[in-house]
Amino acid sequence: MSCAETIDVTEVLTRLYKAENILLLCHKNPDGDTIGSSAALYHALKRLGKTVAVLCADPIPPRYDYMQIGLFDGSFEPAYVVAVDVAGIQLFGDAVREYSERTDLCIDHHPSNTGYADAILLDGSAAATAELMYDVLCAMNAEIDPLVAECLYTGVATDTGCFKFANTTARTHAVAAKLIEAGADVARLNSILFENKSRSRLAVEQLALENLEYHFDGRCALTHLTKEEIAATGAEPDDLEGVTGIPRAIEGVEVGVTLRQQPTGSYKISVRTVLGKDASAIAAHLGGGGHKQAAGCELLGSLENAKSAVLAEVERELCRES
Amino acid sequence: MSCAETIDVTEVLTRLYKAENILLLCHKNPDGDTIGSSAALYHALKRLGKTVAVLCADPIPPRYDYMQIGLFDGSFEPAYVVAVDVAGIQLFGDAVREYSERTDLCIDHHPSNTGYADAILLDGSAAATAELMYDVLCAMNAEIDPLVAECLYTGVATDTGCFKFANTTARTHAVAAKLIEAGADVARLNSILFENKSRSRLAVEQLALENLEYHFDGRCALTHLTKEEIAATGAEPDDLEGVTGIPRAIEGVEVGVTLRQQPTGSYKISVRTVLGKDASAIAAHLGGGGHKQAAGCELLGSLENAKSAVLAEVERELCRES
Repeated sequence: MSCAETIDVTEVLTRLYKAENILLLCHKNPDGDTIGSSAALYHALKRLGKTVAVLCADPIPPRYDYMQIGLFDGSFEPAYVVAVDVAGIQLFGDAVREYSERTDLCIDHHPSNTGYADAILLDGSAAATAELMYDVLCAMNAEIDPLVAECLYTGVATDTGCFKFANTTARTHAVAAKLIEAGADVARLNSILFENKSRSRLAVEQLALENLEYHFDGRCALTHLTKEEIAATGAEPDDLEGVTGIPRAIEGVEVGVTLRQQPTGSYKISVRTVLGKDASAIAAHLGGGGHKQAAGCELLGSLENAKSAVLAEVERELCRES
Repeated sequence: MSCAETIDVTEVLTRLYKAENILLLCHKNPDGDTIGSSAALYHALKRLGKTVAVLCADPIPPRYDYMQIGLFDGSFEPAYVVAVDVAGIQLFGDAVREYSERTDLCIDHHPSNTGYADAILLDGSAAATAELMYDVLCAMNAEIDPLVAECLYTGVATDTGCFKFANTTARTHAVAAKLIEAGADVARLNSILFENKSRSRLAVEQLALENLEYHFDGRCALTHLTKEEIAATGAEPDDLEGVTGIPRAIEGVEVGVTLRQQPTGSYKISVRTVLGKDASAIAAHLGGGGHKQAAGCELLGSLENAKSAVLAEVERELCRES
């Protein structure tokens, strides 16, 4: 039901050059890619003399402070709205509804993008939106200085699990090489991004390990976190992202599932699969979407109901001829 | 006390082209770099029509079977011995003593290489020996087919913790990009190398998290595993290595300590530090040694005594002006 006009990098530049008072929108529960890609574009546009700011429904985690993002403070009236790394309108969050419903341009790498924006630059083969944003900035002749290089590296590294996930390509590594040459201090960044777990994050991991269960002869591992359990750890939403990789990383597991109860009571379900098993098919049958190896959906009802529903879809996927 | 002649890639090729009946030696407790670099050179030399084989004091872990290494079976008399990724003679292991004491050539990236070989090709700036081996094979005009690319990728990826450690450079990523272009199936390899935790490994992690304690205002995190606890998880020695990184990776922690009780009852202590704190100083005061950021020692006595002894040294290091 997409009504977005698909445009190329040249046309993106034409529109950005013309635009004034630009608002860049991140997705809610912001990750390194939506933040890093927005930050890189923010700096590039600012250097062109544009009035520009970044807006996100949720706070930017303080560990990303090094990106020096200028957050939107209402001091100008946005005239051109760009969504960065946002696959669907429901991912903006209520706090930015006012702007998200009039998105002029979307820059994204999710093949599942719903086409809600007026125009879209989409590259589903890019491991991260930051990988695509690197091309945009190069086409713009923007200076890739150490600050911009670190913003882009953050996006590329976080969306690939530090070059470990199946979305990593030769191009991903080639971009990383260019960003390091441009001055990104990746030893410092990797330490911030991957070696700096909060105590509450560890408590969440411990909980996920305690609640781990195996299904279908160990081909599926599933863990769950209720809102009471999450509250007891003192975990922030950000702390919860990392645990979704735990079940799939177990020997013999083809589908890993994590159920996290939201404050409203519903269950947010993350599905991770090995190559050959389709996470997005599992999520799509439950009203969600995503990538082949990483997808998600949200279900109402009890934990047992949510588990039954997702396990039925997991079984269907495991039985499918691959 | 080095007596090795330092040679360049061209001279390495001259000698390898002349050599016959070539034996490639790995270091003991072989890792992905010594195995992957040896395997790549093995395939390249074999395609030149050479008689060549690989020898290691310890078994090659079965997860590396995809490299199709030809192990030395005594069917030829080695006339030219090449050590790959072996920094010192003590790292060969007793089982290969006969050959290791007459090493003609060493190809390595450890700046600490003792220079025990007759000739050495050393690049201390390479993140892995495999990064240097890539240059050797390119100079040789060896075909970097998918098999060879996967051998080299294994070395590069494992020695950098999948591009996360501080040794990772632009060149490391550039080589990874070339290897993927050459056909390395890195999604499959990363899954084998980094996403394949045994259930007993997870049980050990869970235990380490349960036993975690903080000292000195959270600047030191310490965990311990008794031999009874380890036995209950069914863990192999290999499963225990990974947990030593857990305490140091916690926000605010400068020194991470892991105490693992040995079957004999003594405690093996692993010390990991952030930049600026010296793990080897802590370990050295307790009769051990190692690197600045990773060191170890072994203490007899009760858990409480071992903890007290190491915490006293941690406190001394934390109080030292850095």
